[in-house]
Amino acid sequence: MLKRYLLAPGPTPVPPEVLLAMARPMIHHRAPEFDPIFAEVREGLKWLYQTRNDVLMLAASGTGGMEGAVSNFLSPGDKALYVNGGKFGERWGKLCKTFGVQASEIKVEWGQAVDPHQVADALKKDPSIKAVYVQASETSTGVSHDVKALGEVVKGYENTILVVDAITALGVFDIKTDAWGLDVVITGSQKALMLPPGMAFVSVSDKAWALADKAKNAAFYFNFKKERETQTKNQTAWTPTVSLIVGLQEVFRIMKAEGLENMFARQGRLALAMREGVKAAGMALFAKESPSDALTAVCAPDGIDGQAIYKNLRVQYGMTAAGGQDHLKGKIFRLSHMGYADSFDVIAALAATEMVLKGLGHSVKLGSGVGKAQEILMAK
Amino acid sequence: MLKRYLLAPGPTPVPPEVLLAMARPMIHHRAPEFDPIFAEVREGLKWLYQTRNDVLMLAASGTGGMEGAVSNFLSPGDKALYVNGGKFGERWGKLCKTFGVQASEIKVEWGQAVDPHQVADALKKDPSIKAVYVQASETSTGVSHDVKALGEVVKGYENTILVVDAITALGVFDIKTDAWGLDVVITGSQKALMLPPGMAFVSVSDKAWALADKAKNAAFYFNFKKERETQTKNQTAWTPTVSLIVGLQEVFRIMKAEGLENMFARQGRLALAMREGVKAAGMALFAKESPSDALTAVCAPDGIDGQAIYKNLRVQYGMTAAGGQDHLKGKIFRLSHMGYADSFDVIAALAATEMVLKGLGHSVKLGSGVGKAQEILMAK
Repeated sequence: MLKRYLLAPGPTPVPPEVLLAMARPMIHHRAPEFDPIFAEVREGLKWLYQTRNDVLMLAASGTGGMEGAVSNFLSPGDKALYVNGGKFGERWGKLCKTFGVQASEIKVEWGQAVDPHQVADALKKDPSIKAVYVQASETSTGVSHDVKALGEVVKGYENTILVVDAITALGVFDIKTDAWGLDVVITGSQKALMLPPGMAFVSVSDKAWALADKAKNAAFYFNFKKERETQTKNQTAWTPTVSLIVGLQEVFRIMKAEGLENMFARQGRLALAMREGVKAAGMALFAKESPSDALTAVCAPDGIDGQAIYKNLRVQYGMTAAGGQDHLKGKIFRLSHMGYADSFDVIAALAATEMVLKGLGHSVKLGSGVGKAQEILMAK
Repeated sequence: MLKRYLLAPGPTPVPPEVLLAMARPMIHHRAPEFDPIFAEVREGLKWLYQTRNDVLMLAASGTGGMEGAVSNFLSPGDKALYVNGGKFGERWGKLCKTFGVQASEIKVEWGQAVDPHQVADALKKDPSIKAVYVQASETSTGVSHDVKALGEVVKGYENTILVVDAITALGVFDIKTDAWGLDVVITGSQKALMLPPGMAFVSVSDKAWALADKAKNAAFYFNFKKERETQTKNQTAWTPTVSLIVGLQEVFRIMKAEGLENMFARQGRLALAMREGVKAAGMALFAKESPSDALTAVCAPDGIDGQAIYKNLRVQYGMTAAGGQDHLKGKIFRLSHMGYADSFDVIAALAATEMVLKGLGHSVKLGSGVGKAQEILMAK
């Protein structure tokens, strides 16, 4: 008998209250009972995003939100800049290419964060760049880019917007959409929002809407203007993810009971405990700087295959973590602590990791990482 | 945000598959769809009990089964012997008194197990004793009595039955009902059977049925003969706990997938890891001998209030354990690992206990108990 533990950076565990809400009898999205639910969820999104603007809900995974954030704002031939510090940064380049956007890349070594000066220099050199695309948390490497600093940079360009993929950031750490000048912020349901996959969320600033007015690209399903118009009336352009929206209502009730500040403090504490625990157990973090509080990428010790660690966690201990992607396959494994996680999730993940490493013949003192994590988790 | 952990010796956590089964639409117990479910569950009970005899299902808590095991077999004035090594042993005395049974007590110091020779001597002295009552696992002290040895003793007396309260034993460790000559074995739904509270189960041997034929005591609701007659037809004398029986069908599917031997091995391994972890963290076990694999009673360290440990586990870490009862209140706390439990439940409980003790000013090395437990849990 193995209990199942979800330690992958999405989908993340769904709280029982949310599962129960989603198990209620199905309602119809054009019936009157949907209206107050949608209204409450819209309001909740603004609260979580710290924005006064609309946050659009899309029936799609996060990538759908990313696609819309290219197709709705840029026209073929427009210039864009994107930060590529991992698998998800790379995706901006692919999206721009698909929509005929001339995108220049700021290549960042995997495991490192972008230097905001590089973005400033690029914009200074070419102020005709219409959009800057970046991740707030690069899920493939476990690194955060400083989107607050990037907001400062882009604010100075009245015809340039900053588009932030906050898919593994929003709800984990502080993202002040309006105050930091983040024009478009995207997230997904299956991360810190503690829901099953199936929804993308996109906030759009006035500056971005102005750009959207001029954009000429094919955007039918992900038509943000059409969605804004419809969602103001508590409806969606296309069939909405009814169950997930009902679940999201419950998510916001849980989040509001905890409060944004407490939530970020908890997520930060769990992340710190995981990182310090990993180090105390003799392993190294993959993130060379600004590690993301959403997940921890751990270097496989010399001579140990990272995929074997990932596999043994699952087979021996029922824990689904994540391995490394592309050239990091076998080199790292990733443990998430975002969303519905508490101290004992981190402790269990560390304990299992120690046991797996020892089982693979690596010399590790059982309890060493756990003990360090306990120390940090006590100090709340 | 606190996740909730159930570490009390009942109710214990219910597996998600069982919760889902119980959430299916209600069925009627006189409708044909109930018949195969009840039949499957009856068969499952015989498998778990390792008996060829009927195992009766009662809509009651375990105490209802205990009451029936007095009222159905003994008449006012009959003699009985009971082992009192804790709160639940004591209950046999109260039940006998209620039904006019002359019960003599074998008093066992709390924290110790009965010496089977004492029972042998008492029966030799008075062979007219009709029933011997004992716990297989005394939940108040975390001690197991050797019911196999007691079976050997009582087997020699053709008019004496052995009645075993196996409420926190059956499904945790090996109880060979028939092979060991255990005439009446009682359990409850909310322990190793991984169900919500609400059901008692009682197996009855031919020897015990013969005694029941002569018994004259008031047994209306807990009328075992009436239940046997009805349950053979896949019905119950009174309204059955329909949801729990549907859940129990799922429980047996889970248990059979694991197998009795693996299940006992897992429960034994978890218990050993808990005990060794407790000791490695510098605490003492309350059980002086034969600790029960169902739960671990831990002595509060000198100068630390056991109730404060119990309370802080709940308030600070969301863990519901159990305190001590009667004169043990404040002296011990109890951590269960029976039923739906795995390695990380034991690790979480030990980690939280270490953190609570440290928080209360006790000197404990964080991770010390956890590390020892990990070592044992790895060796499966």
